[in-house]
Amino acid sequence: MDAIKNSIPGNMFAIRQYEPDGKLVVETIPVPQPGRGEVLVKMAASPINPSDLALLKGGYMKRSYPFTPGLEGSGVVVDSGGGVMARLRKGKRVACTPNPEGDGTWAEFMLTSAMRTIPLPAAITQEQGAMTVVNPMTAMAFLHMAKTGKHLAVVNNAAASSLGKMLIRLCVDQKIPLINIVRNASHIKELKKLGATYVLNSQDKGFETELISLATELGATLFLDALSGPLTYQLLQAAPPRSTIVVYARLAGESMQINSGHLIRRDIKIVGFQLGNWLQTKGIFFKLAFIKGVKKQLGNALSSHINQTFSLEDVEKAIVHYTQNMSSGKVLLLIKQKE
Amino acid sequence: MDAIKNSIPGNMFAIRQYEPDGKLVVETIPVPQPGRGEVLVKMAASPINPSDLALLKGGYMKRSYPFTPGLEGSGVVVDSGGGVMARLRKGKRVACTPNPEGDGTWAEFMLTSAMRTIPLPAAITQEQGAMTVVNPMTAMAFLHMAKTGKHLAVVNNAAASSLGKMLIRLCVDQKIPLINIVRNASHIKELKKLGATYVLNSQDKGFETELISLATELGATLFLDALSGPLTYQLLQAAPPRSTIVVYARLAGESMQINSGHLIRRDIKIVGFQLGNWLQTKGIFFKLAFIKGVKKQLGNALSSHINQTFSLEDVEKAIVHYTQNMSSGKVLLLIKQKE
Repeated sequence: MDAIKNSIPGNMFAIRQYEPDGKLVVETIPVPQPGRGEVLVKMAASPINPSDLALLKGGYMKRSYPFTPGLEGSGVVVDSGGGVMARLRKGKRVACTPNPEGDGTWAEFMLTSAMRTIPLPAAITQEQGAMTVVNPMTAMAFLHMAKTGKHLAVVNNAAASSLGKMLIRLCVDQKIPLINIVRNASHIKELKKLGATYVLNSQDKGFETELISLATELGATLFLDALSGPLTYQLLQAAPPRSTIVVYARLAGESMQINSGHLIRRDIKIVGFQLGNWLQTKGIFFKLAFIKGVKKQLGNALSSHINQTFSLEDVEKAIVHYTQNMSSGKVLLLIKQKE
Repeated sequence: MDAIKNSIPGNMFAIRQYEPDGKLVVETIPVPQPGRGEVLVKMAASPINPSDLALLKGGYMKRSYPFTPGLEGSGVVVDSGGGVMARLRKGKRVACTPNPEGDGTWAEFMLTSAMRTIPLPAAITQEQGAMTVVNPMTAMAFLHMAKTGKHLAVVNNAAASSLGKMLIRLCVDQKIPLINIVRNASHIKELKKLGATYVLNSQDKGFETELISLATELGATLFLDALSGPLTYQLLQAAPPRSTIVVYARLAGESMQINSGHLIRRDIKIVGFQLGNWLQTKGIFFKLAFIKGVKKQLGNALSSHINQTFSLEDVEKAIVHYTQNMSSGKVLLLIKQKE
C-alpha cells in the first residue's frame, strides 16, 4: 500500500465563497480525487495577491460558485491520477496554481493539473516557494518585453510593491534604466537601497513634468501600469512616440481616461496584461526556459519579503492586514493540516 | 531653355493660417525653389480630409506658423532640384503629399520631396488622383493588418465615410467579413448596394447586444475606431479576447473611457494609427509593393465619390460644406493657376 496516499483524509478544511464579493467561510468539504494528468497537493502556504482581491470582488475572471479562492501556493504532491508527468511529481515539493475555474490554494488540499506545478529547488522554503508564480513570472515577463521590444528604459508606477522591488533588482542586474514611481516619500530610501537610480513621488509638485523629461531623456518607451484609472493618463502624457503602455492591474480604478489624439499622433499602444493570457501565447520551449530562468532567480532578485503570516482560518484578518499594508511586504497564509 | 520651368511665375496664391484654429487667408507668396531631391508640383486638385480639419484646429501634429494647409493633392511636376528620382518625375502627373512640417497642397505650387510623389496612371483623372494617399492607403493598411493579424472578421465604426466604402469594396473582394456601423439609417441601403453584408445602426435599440453577438459569432478581432471618445467603449465591450482596437481618428471626441478590467482579462490592445507613422515602420520594398497595390485599385475599390468642388479661394465655404455633409462624398478644391 501507498503510505503517503494512505494518510490522505476523506475531508478537509477549505475557504469558500458563495457569491461575488460574498463573505469567506471555513468549510469542511471532501478531498478531491485527481484524474489522469492531475495531482493532489497537500498545501503548505499561499500568499494574498492583488489578483486574489480582484477575484474575490467578482472581477478578474468569470467563475462558478461556490469556490475555493487562492491563485498560487506551495505544498507537497501526495497523489497522482496517472500520466507520466503527474506520476513524476509524486512526493515532490512544488509551487502550484489552480486549474482555470478550478478550486484554489486556500484549502488543506488542492487538485490541479501536473502542468501547473513547478518542483521547488531544495534551497527554497515552502514560504518563498508559495510566491513563485504571480509576481516573479510577471516581473520576468516584463523584463522579457523590455528586451525583445528594444525599449531603452522602463517606467513602473507601483514601484514599492513586491513586484516593483523584483523589477528593480532585475533591471539593476540587466542594466536597464527603470523609472520608479511611488505614492509615498517613505519608500524612496528603501528602493534606492535596492539599487534604484530613478525614484519619483507622484505626490510631489512638478511630478508630471519631471516624469516627462526623465522619460524623454532616457528614452523610456515601456510603461507598466498597475494603477489604471486616472493615473494611466499621466503615463500617456509622458510617453514618447511608439511607446507601449502595459496595464497589468487596476489598483486605483476600473475606468481610465485616454487622450486619443496622443494615441494617434504618437503611435502609442495600450495593452492589457494577464500572466496566464501571456503565457498561453508562448510555445512549450519558451515556457520551459522561462520557468528555469524564474527558478534561478527565486532566492535572489525574485524573492519576496514576508510581512506577516496568518493561519488559513484567519483569512479575513489576513486580507484586512494586507489591504492596509500593501507596500510592506507579502501576507502569507500558512496551512496546517488538521489532526 | 526649359519651357516648363520658364513658365513658373515668381509668386503664387496660397491659403495660409497664422495660428492654431485661426482663420484661413488667401495670400500671394513667393513660389519656393526645390533643393536636391525635391520637386515643385503645379497643383491641380486637393481634397479636404478629417486630418486637415484636425490640423487646422491645431491638433494632429505640431507645426510652426504661418503655414499652407492641405495634406494631399495632385498636379504636374514642373521643376526638380536635382537627384535621380526628382529628375525622373519632371513633367509627370503625380499624387503628392507635403514634407513633414512643410507647406501643403492648398496653393498654386507645392514643394515636396520626390519620394512624396506618386506618378498617376493615365486612366486616373487629376480629381481622383488627388485622393490617392490618405483614404486609399489607410484602407489598404487596414486590409494588410486584417490579413497579417489573422483576424477572422473586422469591425469599422465609420462605415459611411469614403474610407468606410473603400473598406467594404476591399473586404468583399478579399472575402473578409466586415461589420459596418453607421449612425444613420439612410446609409444602410447604399452600403448594402456596395456589397456590405453586415450593417448595424448605432442609434438602434439593442445595437450594443447585436454588435457583441455578431462580433463573437464572426470572430471579429480587429476593431477600427474613427470616432474615439465614448464610442470606443462600445467597441471594447464587444471585443472578443485578443482583439486589437485601432484608433485612427477622433471624429466624436478627444478623450475616451476605457474599461481596464476588460483590457486585462481579455488581453486587448488599443493602438493609435496614423498613416505616416505606420509607413515609417515599413521597409522600402514593402512600401513599393504597397503603393503598387494601391495604384492598381485606384480606379476600382479605392475610388472616391466627389460630392462637390470649390475653387481654392472658396476654401472656407468648402470646409463648411464638407463638415455638414461628411457622409455624402469628398469635397475637392480645384486649383486653377492665375493668368
